[in-house]
Amino acid sequence: MTNNPKPLKGVFCPVLTPFDDQLNPDTTLFVEHCHRVLAEGCHGLAVFGTTGEANSLSVKERILLLDALIDSGVDGSVIAPGTGCAALPDSVRLTQHALEVGCSGVLMLPPFYYKNVTDDGLFQAFVKIIERVGDSRLKIYLYHIPPVSGVPLELALVERLADAYPECVVGLKDSSGNWPYTEALLKARPGFGAFSGSEIFLRNNLLAGGVGTITASANVNAPAIRSAYDGFRDKDAETLQSAITRRRQIIQAQPMIPGLKAVVAAVTGENGWLRVRPPLEPLSLAASNDLIKSLITDGYPPLSKSEISIES
Amino acid sequence: MTNNPKPLKGVFCPVLTPFDDQLNPDTTLFVEHCHRVLAEGCHGLAVFGTTGEANSLSVKERILLLDALIDSGVDGSVIAPGTGCAALPDSVRLTQHALEVGCSGVLMLPPFYYKNVTDDGLFQAFVKIIERVGDSRLKIYLYHIPPVSGVPLELALVERLADAYPECVVGLKDSSGNWPYTEALLKARPGFGAFSGSEIFLRNNLLAGGVGTITASANVNAPAIRSAYDGFRDKDAETLQSAITRRRQIIQAQPMIPGLKAVVAAVTGENGWLRVRPPLEPLSLAASNDLIKSLITDGYPPLSKSEISIES
Repeated sequence: MTNNPKPLKGVFCPVLTPFDDQLNPDTTLFVEHCHRVLAEGCHGLAVFGTTGEANSLSVKERILLLDALIDSGVDGSVIAPGTGCAALPDSVRLTQHALEVGCSGVLMLPPFYYKNVTDDGLFQAFVKIIERVGDSRLKIYLYHIPPVSGVPLELALVERLADAYPECVVGLKDSSGNWPYTEALLKARPGFGAFSGSEIFLRNNLLAGGVGTITASANVNAPAIRSAYDGFRDKDAETLQSAITRRRQIIQAQPMIPGLKAVVAAVTGENGWLRVRPPLEPLSLAASNDLIKSLITDGYPPLSKSEISIES
Repeated sequence: MTNNPKPLKGVFCPVLTPFDDQLNPDTTLFVEHCHRVLAEGCHGLAVFGTTGEANSLSVKERILLLDALIDSGVDGSVIAPGTGCAALPDSVRLTQHALEVGCSGVLMLPPFYYKNVTDDGLFQAFVKIIERVGDSRLKIYLYHIPPVSGVPLELALVERLADAYPECVVGLKDSSGNWPYTEALLKARPGFGAFSGSEIFLRNNLLAGGVGTITASANVNAPAIRSAYDGFRDKDAETLQSAITRRRQIIQAQPMIPGLKAVVAAVTGENGWLRVRPPLEPLSLAASNDLIKSLITDGYPPLSKSEISIES
């Protein structure tokens, strides 16, 4: 635990959550995968995001997985777990636990069951969590993902929270897919910890003063994304960005979560990775193989042509 | 506990959840309110629905409230708790608990975080809950409320579930506000346990073979709704229906949950009822008084003109 966590920056991986044949979290595969993406160049782990099927997990399951990750030797300072739930006590409990294990920040969804709620109501939702947690070490990165949550965080609300809690509400992950949102945020608040939710916007984000990306593709393409991050001001920066953009477009042509799991299954040879919790569905064998072929055609280094098919 | 729960029918109240000054559930007020709406004519209690702010409550909070209700002497056979959560283990735990305390049925939302999921994925979500619970007493009433959940239950999916589990998936609450949905469902499956989610459709629903209504307004207008239910074939049926429709329209002109809480606060003199958990907001004093004045003008019997204002 640290009294003054360092601001998060860099390439963070919203790690996938593997399941065993009873659809319970597979802690061993989870921990292995986290170590792998860190070794491949990720600065940190955004466990329990949308990509991690976090809202399909119970509070207890999330706590056990995070504890296992810490026990495996990953320092809490490089972990930013998702802790925003529909229910206030769940968000509070998960946020407290993140602080207990020394996480430098948390990624926080707004409560997402009720739709068309007011900015005042959402403001109070975050205030109640901050007050109940009552810990000066807390660093919140707001999680803006309206296509999934159904609850957008308007810029005026983000600014209001950052004004009210300047030491606590320090950043945001923009998964809206709408670059002008991040751009406007960074223009209004230079220095705010803005992460792009897709590496497609990585260079734009860094040039505008943002701090990095928290991107699902980092589960399978961390080295290239790290290179583009490190080289964003180099003379080949556009080439590096184009390469990760092209690969992202291949990946997101399929449903992202089962698609990424299919790639991890192919890379690791662990077919357990193919499982998802409903309401998500595994990718079909044909779609998985199409995805993997497209990646190989794009020069995807972890796979050779001999590994082209996932077996049924 | 009963081995063969009787099918649910009648007027069910999706009871409001009161909070204390720390925004924790107020068990005493909750239990009192449940007894009151039963005494006023409700056949049963649909605790932990949208109106009950269920998804703003933790699993533990819901279990404690339901246990308190049972301990107060309400028979489980008249309680149909909401048990559908975003996370599979939470839905399973709450459903098991409902069976443990003898509930005759549960109202089940689909997992509601991911949007635009497939019918196959949603089908599997319900299958996994049914399999994990593994109890032949389980009676599921599907909860279709797309404007809030963001996850509609298409009729084809409802039929597929009812075909696959004819003894288990026995009904549905339609809170879409779209009467043709219920109408088509009852045409396709005569005898299916269809509840209208608003008393506006009560008579239509009963005439079409439906079984009743689970309606938020029953928190404040149970006697009139019960009369319309009992008299739906009487010669004054249309008059009874018009009266509850008119009152519903007054109520839903304001945000429903804080509006209903304001009315209960006025009726009981317990201002604690005004509290909601964020992201919901209490009604303004002006809006509360407008609502109460409109109800009194409509002849709302629990209040007299001397009680017209909620104090600030």
